[in-house]
Amino acid sequence: MQSPRPAGAPESATLLISCPDQPGLVAAVTSFIASHDGNILHLDQHVDQQENVFFMRVEWDLTRFKLSPADIAPAFKAIADKYAMQWQLHFSSDVPRMAIFVSREAHCLYDLLSRYTAGEWRVEIPLIISNHPHLEPVAQQFGIPYHVFPITRETKAAQEQAQLELLKACGIDLIVLARYMQILSPEFVAEYPNRIINIHHSFLPAFPGAKPYHMAFSRGVKIIGATSHYVTADLDAGPIIEQDTVRINHKDSVDDLIRKGKDVEKLVLSRAVRYHLQHQVLVYDNKTVIFA
Amino acid sequence: MQSPRPAGAPESATLLISCPDQPGLVAAVTSFIASHDGNILHLDQHVDQQENVFFMRVEWDLTRFKLSPADIAPAFKAIADKYAMQWQLHFSSDVPRMAIFVSREAHCLYDLLSRYTAGEWRVEIPLIISNHPHLEPVAQQFGIPYHVFPITRETKAAQEQAQLELLKACGIDLIVLARYMQILSPEFVAEYPNRIINIHHSFLPAFPGAKPYHMAFSRGVKIIGATSHYVTADLDAGPIIEQDTVRINHKDSVDDLIRKGKDVEKLVLSRAVRYHLQHQVLVYDNKTVIFA
Amino acid sequence: MQSPRPAGAPESATLLISCPDQPGLVAAVTSFIASHDGNILHLDQHVDQQENVFFMRVEWDLTRFKLSPADIAPAFKAIADKYAMQWQLHFSSDVPRMAIFVSREAHCLYDLLSRYTAGEWRVEIPLIISNHPHLEPVAQQFGIPYHVFPITRETKAAQEQAQLELLKACGIDLIVLARYMQILSPEFVAEYPNRIINIHHSFLPAFPGAKPYHMAFSRGVKIIGATSHYVTADLDAGPIIEQDTVRINHKDSVDDLIRKGKDVEKLVLSRAVRYHLQHQVLVYDNKTVIFA
Amino acid sequence: MQSPRPAGAPESATLLISCPDQPGLVAAVTSFIASHDGNILHLDQHVDQQENVFFMRVEWDLTRFKLSPADIAPAFKAIADKYAMQWQLHFSSDVPRMAIFVSREAHCLYDLLSRYTAGEWRVEIPLIISNHPHLEPVAQQFGIPYHVFPITRETKAAQEQAQLELLKACGIDLIVLARYMQILSPEFVAEYPNRIINIHHSFLPAFPGAKPYHMAFSRGVKIIGATSHYVTADLDAGPIIEQDTVRINHKDSVDDLIRKGKDVEKLVLSRAVRYHLQHQVLVYDNKTVIFA
Repeated sequence: MQSPRPAGAPESATLLISCPDQPGLVAAVTSFIASHDGNILHLDQHVDQQENVFFMRVEWDLTRFKLSPADIAPAFKAIADKYAMQWQLHFSSDVPRMAIFVSREAHCLYDLLSRYTAGEWRVEIPLIISNHPHLEPVAQQFGIPYHVFPITRETKAAQEQAQLELLKACGIDLIVLARYMQILSPEFVAEYPNRIINIHHSFLPAFPGAKPYHMAFSRGVKIIGATSHYVTADLDAGPIIEQDTVRINHKDSVDDLIRKGKDVEKLVLSRAVRYHLQHQVLVYDNKTVIFA
Repeated sequence: MQSPRPAGAPESATLLISCPDQPGLVAAVTSFIASHDGNILHLDQHVDQQENVFFMRVEWDLTRFKLSPADIAPAFKAIADKYAMQWQLHFSSDVPRMAIFVSREAHCLYDLLSRYTAGEWRVEIPLIISNHPHLEPVAQQFGIPYHVFPITRETKAAQEQAQLELLKACGIDLIVLARYMQILSPEFVAEYPNRIINIHHSFLPAFPGAKPYHMAFSRGVKIIGATSHYVTADLDAGPIIEQDTVRINHKDSVDDLIRKGKDVEKLVLSRAVRYHLQHQVLVYDNKTVIFA
Repeated sequence: MQSPRPAGAPESATLLISCPDQPGLVAAVTSFIASHDGNILHLDQHVDQQENVFFMRVEWDLTRFKLSPADIAPAFKAIADKYAMQWQLHFSSDVPRMAIFVSREAHCLYDLLSRYTAGEWRVEIPLIISNHPHLEPVAQQFGIPYHVFPITRETKAAQEQAQLELLKACGIDLIVLARYMQILSPEFVAEYPNRIINIHHSFLPAFPGAKPYHMAFSRGVKIIGATSHYVTADLDAGPIIEQDTVRINHKDSVDDLIRKGKDVEKLVLSRAVRYHLQHQVLVYDNKTVIFA
Repeated sequence: MQSPRPAGAPESATLLISCPDQPGLVAAVTSFIASHDGNILHLDQHVDQQENVFFMRVEWDLTRFKLSPADIAPAFKAIADKYAMQWQLHFSSDVPRMAIFVSREAHCLYDLLSRYTAGEWRVEIPLIISNHPHLEPVAQQFGIPYHVFPITRETKAAQEQAQLELLKACGIDLIVLARYMQILSPEFVAEYPNRIINIHHSFLPAFPGAKPYHMAFSRGVKIIGATSHYVTADLDAGPIIEQDTVRINHKDSVDDLIRKGKDVEKLVLSRAVRYHLQHQVLVYDNKTVIFA
């Protein structure tokens, strides 16, 4: 199912840019857009004063824009080269394709699929991948193909290879780990740099790794949280996209922490997915700039 | 006491602009800055799609800027006129002068003066005005002149006139009502449009007027709040600058609500004052755009 | 589907009590429980000092309790009468039956059914009622009977009567209005006093009635919220069970408010339902005591 | 200055109890109170099901209580011994004496002294101790003696000894480290077990030790926090009393994190101090039960 654009929203183009800071950058980009009669819908920029790096996101209306989508990148290249920009160009008419990975916990999967079915995002979800058959009934409820890849130490490399082939065949742009309890190999991660979003059930960098709710209970913290981040080769150490927290108290057992934490996980993961789908995320120096 | 700029922060100029939306606005403003070798420190813009109004805040480094401060406004006027812009130009080197109005509650006054004394803001506070002598010892603790203007129905007009004369004599740019329990007359308000900041001890528009904590207790709400807004002729109905909330429960008496509310009032008022002092607020249609 | 008790949780009894405050109340109730070898799992009490009313919730383990469930109420009656207590006795082994009412918005329905299917609550949901056929596919996804009662001004009384008959036939204990956009008649409400939970999409008492997100946008608030309350004959004025808020800013359109608000509505409604199902709510003077 | 009791609040006694869980504990304690005509103002209990430990706080009105304060402990001892209780008995008429330790940061000191001067707490603050002369003017503003103990590696032991003598001479019950940048020796800590409250400027266990805001900036977290805890011999590892968080984003420099964090530190520390002064904290197994 393809989620519709909000009623009346025009088709748009979005540029994400980073480069060494210097005078004239915003003027150069916005003059380019204005010179072809583009009207800016959103513009946000940021300068990391410490590192002297410039970041920018600009989205403009294509309705009266004089350049065709295919001509924009070639025309912009001259500016990009002049300022040594790293840049991405996205079109709202391109609908991203997203795969969901799950294990046994259903809450994030339900949340993602409910938003998808309700048309909250402009995305296609052509498949769900799991290392367990456990959640297949949920996939069936929502009519989405569910692929099981059981994983053992011996089969891991081969199974990841099979997963990658399936993902490529389905034209997947984004992978969402919705409480997928397997660690992806560095080789797998390298195939989707900054395109694999994980939800970790703690307020990182507190309680990385396994059983964070048990650790939080044991330490006696008064607030727990969840963290959504891009997956890198370092476990739970990738660029953080979004975090949130919820208050707990001494009456809460580990089961209560798990229950309260699930609601935070759902919110945090769905916000991170939305930021990514809207091209609002720029990764730099293992951190994220979120243009929201 | 003049609060220092953060170490190493360059002197800067800030433009706040609003005008009918059309293509080329950002390009026009940023090209103006770039053409005189200005480097942009912060740029934020917003388009109200419903009303077709464009808003922008841009702050740039004056260190290598080719125009002297006095020449900027005349030079920018051509652009502003072309696009029918309403605009303000501010310089970080101009230190605003702020008056605080209080009645009997000390918590916001302590909070403002502690921040002032600690150098958190670049501002001068040359006087405190009150309708009661009650808080004079606090003013003395911080070494700030304290002026008492007792107010009755009969004396109100004359006392407000006397207050205005004192404020003008002190060159006051901004008035902060830190739980000042008198309603300012429309005539007084008209002298400082969008330059009088009030803190109301409820989450507006819930519980306007007197005794909001008592009303919140009586209604049985589970969260209370505070609201900072510019004062207009309509009581508690001016443009909202900042709000925040805190959770309460059935165990909390009215006294507990007052106690918990005070902490929210302090935070909300201090954030609103900061936004104003940093020229991050644009008022439009009885609402605020906060470029933070 | 009946949701299981958490592994290892013993079957328990819960007393909810309110009465005029006086010395000896806690001693009387807890001595009753101790005298029959009951071990207290949770005890919470509250005294409204202003009204001089005592409230108490006590839950105890039935495993070694000497009285059979059927004998508890008769035995406790002597104490209750002595102190003029209003009281309810609940057993964890009694699984409540809950009906969901919806109109066109799917998000709360998805959220409730996902929690139900995942076994988060000990409850039965034997039916969904709507004034529209719109959400029948969601009901089918989760395998729950969906009954459509179209309502016009002329048919309202008859349709409500038909709904009531269906609810009685299904043994419904609790009705949850999950964005049901019809106002229930006082006659309907009187059939389920303090047993109809509504979610209103504003931070009450701000923005009661229709289109609260539009009103919030128009007023320019910086935070929006949602409120879950028991339905009374007065629209949006019943006892508040739970509220929560989320921060917005000038960039958010009405559509953004609706989107962000949905996430708060889901959380607030699900927490209120949980409190009710766990017998943690006492209603008094149009307010709630939440023993959580 | 002694802060007054809230108008009309009766003098009360508070028992804090922990012991192995078993049936009859609440009945035993509340029957003791009722048998002497005590009326309970607040009662809260908690059972750690995992460890089988019972915790209770009960506060009762002494107005009509038949036992004199001096007779309560001897009378209660029989019950306490029977159930192997650890217990503390506090009277609202006993005003605790609190010392504040500071270094160079003024914000927490201003916050504590403002609350003290405004009568928010029933406490005496007879002295402030620092390793620097820097904040003496703040102490003078509030009229509180300020003692400087410069500390080097060589003088540390002797200076701590001198501090302890001063604290004993002043009858100090509670020490509050309001951003005191010296690590107390285990010997010092042992003199005030669970009576030294520290504020750490991170969301523990994330970022313990020095420069937590710099570490938070470097890691790219989206939320920062503060933690108040009892000081133990292990650095930043004592029982957590209170935590809170605040959202940040990529625009925030380290200086912004420090500024936003200060507001959280003030709130968290003041809440922790209040819990302690109200005898609402029970420490168990390096965690706290907060009866609030």
